[in-house]
Amino acid sequence: MNQITNVQLKTPYLVFLGDVTEMLYAKTGAGIVQWCPEAVVGQIRLPGCSIDLGVPELSIQNAVLAGARSLIIGVAPMGGGIGANWSKVLNEAAAMGMDIVSGLHTDLAETPGLVETASASGAALINVRRAPPRLPIGTGEKRTGLRLLTVGTDCAVGKKYSALALVKAMREQGMQATFRATGQTGIMIAGSGIPVDSVVSDFICGAAEVISPANHKEHWDVIEGQGSLFNPSYAGVSLGLLHGSQPDALVVCHDATRTQISTCKQYELPSIRECIALNLQCARLTNPKVRCVGICVNTSGLAPHKRTAYLQALTQETGLLCVDPLTDGCASIVDEIQRVWHGQAELA
Amino acid sequence: MNQITNVQLKTPYLVFLGDVTEMLYAKTGAGIVQWCPEAVVGQIRLPGCSIDLGVPELSIQNAVLAGARSLIIGVAPMGGGIGANWSKVLNEAAAMGMDIVSGLHTDLAETPGLVETASASGAALINVRRAPPRLPIGTGEKRTGLRLLTVGTDCAVGKKYSALALVKAMREQGMQATFRATGQTGIMIAGSGIPVDSVVSDFICGAAEVISPANHKEHWDVIEGQGSLFNPSYAGVSLGLLHGSQPDALVVCHDATRTQISTCKQYELPSIRECIALNLQCARLTNPKVRCVGICVNTSGLAPHKRTAYLQALTQETGLLCVDPLTDGCASIVDEIQRVWHGQAELA
Repeated sequence: MNQITNVQLKTPYLVFLGDVTEMLYAKTGAGIVQWCPEAVVGQIRLPGCSIDLGVPELSIQNAVLAGARSLIIGVAPMGGGIGANWSKVLNEAAAMGMDIVSGLHTDLAETPGLVETASASGAALINVRRAPPRLPIGTGEKRTGLRLLTVGTDCAVGKKYSALALVKAMREQGMQATFRATGQTGIMIAGSGIPVDSVVSDFICGAAEVISPANHKEHWDVIEGQGSLFNPSYAGVSLGLLHGSQPDALVVCHDATRTQISTCKQYELPSIRECIALNLQCARLTNPKVRCVGICVNTSGLAPHKRTAYLQALTQETGLLCVDPLTDGCASIVDEIQRVWHGQAELA
Repeated sequence: MNQITNVQLKTPYLVFLGDVTEMLYAKTGAGIVQWCPEAVVGQIRLPGCSIDLGVPELSIQNAVLAGARSLIIGVAPMGGGIGANWSKVLNEAAAMGMDIVSGLHTDLAETPGLVETASASGAALINVRRAPPRLPIGTGEKRTGLRLLTVGTDCAVGKKYSALALVKAMREQGMQATFRATGQTGIMIAGSGIPVDSVVSDFICGAAEVISPANHKEHWDVIEGQGSLFNPSYAGVSLGLLHGSQPDALVVCHDATRTQISTCKQYELPSIRECIALNLQCARLTNPKVRCVGICVNTSGLAPHKRTAYLQALTQETGLLCVDPLTDGCASIVDEIQRVWHGQAELA
């Protein structure tokens, strides 16, 4: 058994869904199937589970025959713990040599028998919520390659989703692009990354530098943002990530119906213009050429007939491209990136 | 033996100086003697040590008779480790029931025999560089009492010294004031605190809230700042500390001869005006009434005849009180605080 913290997950995955009955609790599994279907051989569910990700239903044995190398816990039940009734499946998978991958608060080592089973088979128990040891202090040194960071007016406004949608659109336009994960679900999707909010605070910037190393000069790292400079609980994480990412481009994410900071209800959400201004001001410390290239808005809380008008008004106000990545995709923002950084002629 | 992380140090102290021969390496011990002489019963040195803190030379046995309850490692030798030749003294102190307090990178538990000795006597081995477990997430909720945070143009520009000098001046003027420590030497001086740069990044703001809890409405917490919003390596720590401290007053610290960021030499130091502006802008998130009340400058690198002119020019430029706390003390800044917050008539 290998307690790995500096993750490099082994694909393909078998996604475990426990016995959840609401999609809300299976968001991790659904995200993996949506964003890296090629890495998923199937799902495994306990009796009573009513969620179906639309991938093959496999036993542990059949998953191994199909090539599965990791069992990914794709659910986060109420309370965030590992279910007492999961033990049999987890042990069976570990016994067959599959790594067990969790992003939950509970330590996998607390599952009865699992440490011993994994030790015997050589399987790893991986918690993607744990930061790797021995990260470096940030240096602020310029790295080659291009970087985009998604930032936001608050937590949970679509920074991961937008980053993934941007990478998809970049690749569709033939660009070199890599999604760089900074949170547990992102790490499962990417197969690697660092959960920056779990990093000791001296090393936030250093972690961000490790996440997006020097690369080919036309290659884009699209880095999953965390928190917000305007969320008092988490702004330190956001600033360290901003400095360490040295973004050339920022995309601001926002939820159209959010009016208060999610973790501190007494705080009003900043305006999008304030959010852009402070992020640009702080980002200039490590990249004076940074610019904001677009706004991704989650408009799902608006009445359907109001969504287009909302995005148009925001474009009017900010002079920036505004899209809902879920319904519009990010091709228009990527067009703008092509124009600015890759000398593409502007479309009429 | 008790591995304590949430520190509340037992005074009085016996300060251990090892065998160092340069004051640079004994700064921790010197700071303790300077700022809390009432907590120090004496010093203990190994053969070859040429540093003298001017306090009684005591054996372990005599220190215990004098009431010493903790042996404080007051040196940080080259490399930051615990000397191989320290083992006898540390074990002797632990055997007599004294807690052993260290701020070094090396774990005290690595000292041969020390864990066993401390277990037997009930002494604690305390590393003040370790953050306590189970800190809360920051809430951003307003607390009663007044708060001052020292911020800076960079790391190591006198934020701890200035905070201590401010508390001294406040007390001399009959004000209620408490120094709140956020780094290892500060924690030894205060006897408690949290090393915020060792806190997991999700909890920086929460740690700052714990450090300066609600208090009497006229009481000042003077919080030791860390890092700088302009130091790319550590700005995340600084922002979380700024938000969690909810300062009413900021004092900006600066080294008169510093031109580049200490950990990132390719970065120019910000101007003091830029530093004030960004700190105020970010601090307003959790305390809209924040104001900057003065500037503390380390002028020791300037020729003596240039110091006054330098401080006067800075006052001219910023409209703020500028002092070197080492030579001038902080009484004039505290006068300004009295005027603004305690309705004292302005001195003519």
